[in-house]
Amino acid sequence: MNEKIDVVGIGNALVDVLAQTDDAAVAALGLTKGTMQLVSQADMQKLYAQIGPAVEMSGGSAANTIAGVASFGGRAAYIGKVADDVLGKVFRHDITAQGITFNTAPHTVEHTSGCCIVLVTPDGERTMNTYLGASNALTVADLDEKLIQSAQYIYLEGYLFDPPEAKKAFYAAAEMARAGDTKVTLTLSDLFCVGRHRDDFQKLITTHVDMLFANEQELCAQYQTDNLDAAIAAARGHADILAVTRSEKGAVIITPTETITVSAQPVARVVDTTGAGDLFAGGFLYGLTQGMSLAECGRLGTVAAAEIISHTGARPQTSLARLAA
Amino acid sequence: MNEKIDVVGIGNALVDVLAQTDDAAVAALGLTKGTMQLVSQADMQKLYAQIGPAVEMSGGSAANTIAGVASFGGRAAYIGKVADDVLGKVFRHDITAQGITFNTAPHTVEHTSGCCIVLVTPDGERTMNTYLGASNALTVADLDEKLIQSAQYIYLEGYLFDPPEAKKAFYAAAEMARAGDTKVTLTLSDLFCVGRHRDDFQKLITTHVDMLFANEQELCAQYQTDNLDAAIAAARGHADILAVTRSEKGAVIITPTETITVSAQPVARVVDTTGAGDLFAGGFLYGLTQGMSLAECGRLGTVAAAEIISHTGARPQTSLARLAA
Repeated sequence: MNEKIDVVGIGNALVDVLAQTDDAAVAALGLTKGTMQLVSQADMQKLYAQIGPAVEMSGGSAANTIAGVASFGGRAAYIGKVADDVLGKVFRHDITAQGITFNTAPHTVEHTSGCCIVLVTPDGERTMNTYLGASNALTVADLDEKLIQSAQYIYLEGYLFDPPEAKKAFYAAAEMARAGDTKVTLTLSDLFCVGRHRDDFQKLITTHVDMLFANEQELCAQYQTDNLDAAIAAARGHADILAVTRSEKGAVIITPTETITVSAQPVARVVDTTGAGDLFAGGFLYGLTQGMSLAECGRLGTVAAAEIISHTGARPQTSLARLAA
Repeated sequence: MNEKIDVVGIGNALVDVLAQTDDAAVAALGLTKGTMQLVSQADMQKLYAQIGPAVEMSGGSAANTIAGVASFGGRAAYIGKVADDVLGKVFRHDITAQGITFNTAPHTVEHTSGCCIVLVTPDGERTMNTYLGASNALTVADLDEKLIQSAQYIYLEGYLFDPPEAKKAFYAAAEMARAGDTKVTLTLSDLFCVGRHRDDFQKLITTHVDMLFANEQELCAQYQTDNLDAAIAAARGHADILAVTRSEKGAVIITPTETITVSAQPVARVVDTTGAGDLFAGGFLYGLTQGMSLAECGRLGTVAAAEIISHTGARPQTSLARLAA
């Protein structure tokens, strides 16, 4: 039924509302810079009323990754839940306009589409406030087993562990993948997300995950150490491949037998780091689907991350295939 | 009732939907690159389905100008019509979040808020497709006479001549201003807009307008010549001050007795010229309200224009007051 797909992403479907601010304003709002917190619709509206002018762009962690895969020329699909409202239509337009398969039925009761208010400080760091909305309504019934089993890889975001039904869908998708010949990849998503779900993540990593993405803080939190080398030593072999992103220090790729260091690409000015990890994963996964070496996969990851942090918003604004050539 | 205002802008209230594209795609869509065309809601939706991923940001010509005035630190107000929908709330948030007075009641019947699909080509040029929606519903009843007469300047966009009721409001606002001590400024807005309204513009310029903004193509079209010097010679004295913007050549300021040339500010890379003329006007008007020389007003205009063309979207992303210091 489905043509062969390179990567299927499954995640919370969100539209980002990005606003420039400063460190003092982030602190005054009681937020922890650099992290993601979940907020109610009322709190989201209250926060929106307190922030400066904003820009609206499609986001969602795994959706950003999948947009990256597509921008490299990969055959990509996405599973996630929006409502049938303006934001939902924006999300659907932006992802299908890139040629990405997106057949998840819109949620038609009560919820509005999910959104994420992203506060960007002058150093380019982002602080995220997510109202899950309709993305909360993703269930096992939304999983297209044929689509998942047609793919080389599925990519799951740790954020999916926050909505209870989505967590069930997460496990079901991993089982569907393993029942076929589809490899399972996971991102730990966020420091606080690790805090909320550490034990579940650990079971999953050792039993279901072929490849794990994390930044250094997330990996340290997952392995309960403040030493990156110790975290890497503990994690080595838990997944076949572990990619640890380190911001301006690039990334480290870990396999049971290898440690590969990848340099970050030069960036004239870091404008907004929203999506940096997502796009690193997008480039890396595209490389894997093309049978490239892990070093080259890492390079594609850093090319994609460098593009995304040089402008506002977490979706590529230029062809990553052209940039990587 | 109202505190003293520097500039009140009146215009079509729109949210921009900005998408990267290329010259071939613009031509294939049958559009004239660099201009604005009005489209029906059905055509807007059809066009949206044909374009790539987009970014949503508040826009509207005079609203962009007013956002510029506020970013320089000016006391600004705006009159324009949105619906009480998601896009309308985005527009209202973004303008009030800058401290701009915006009290126009939302339109509550039938219409959705207006939007403009902006196609941006690799040279940074923009091609605009405007669905007026609720902005079409601006009438004389929406004019706050006290607000207008409390201001030093009102700023009117030529685009307002497209919706028939707005055109009446346009004249009424100019009359209110002249009945008070408020100076009237106008932008010709667009080459095709001049084509549609040349005679009306000409009457207005000679009878009601203290200051006129135009780019060189618009001025030549208004004075039906392909020679800029001839257009300037014909226009000199029709308004007390004429500011002609010339893209990378900067601007020329014309009074009955003076011709002042202003250089463009250097820009590392022109990303998107949407709003360049709007922001030039914003900087220039702010300078006028502060009693600055025309040369300094022009410099502030070019500072604001340079900021806006260095990123996607027509609203400032950094403090223009700080940039100009």
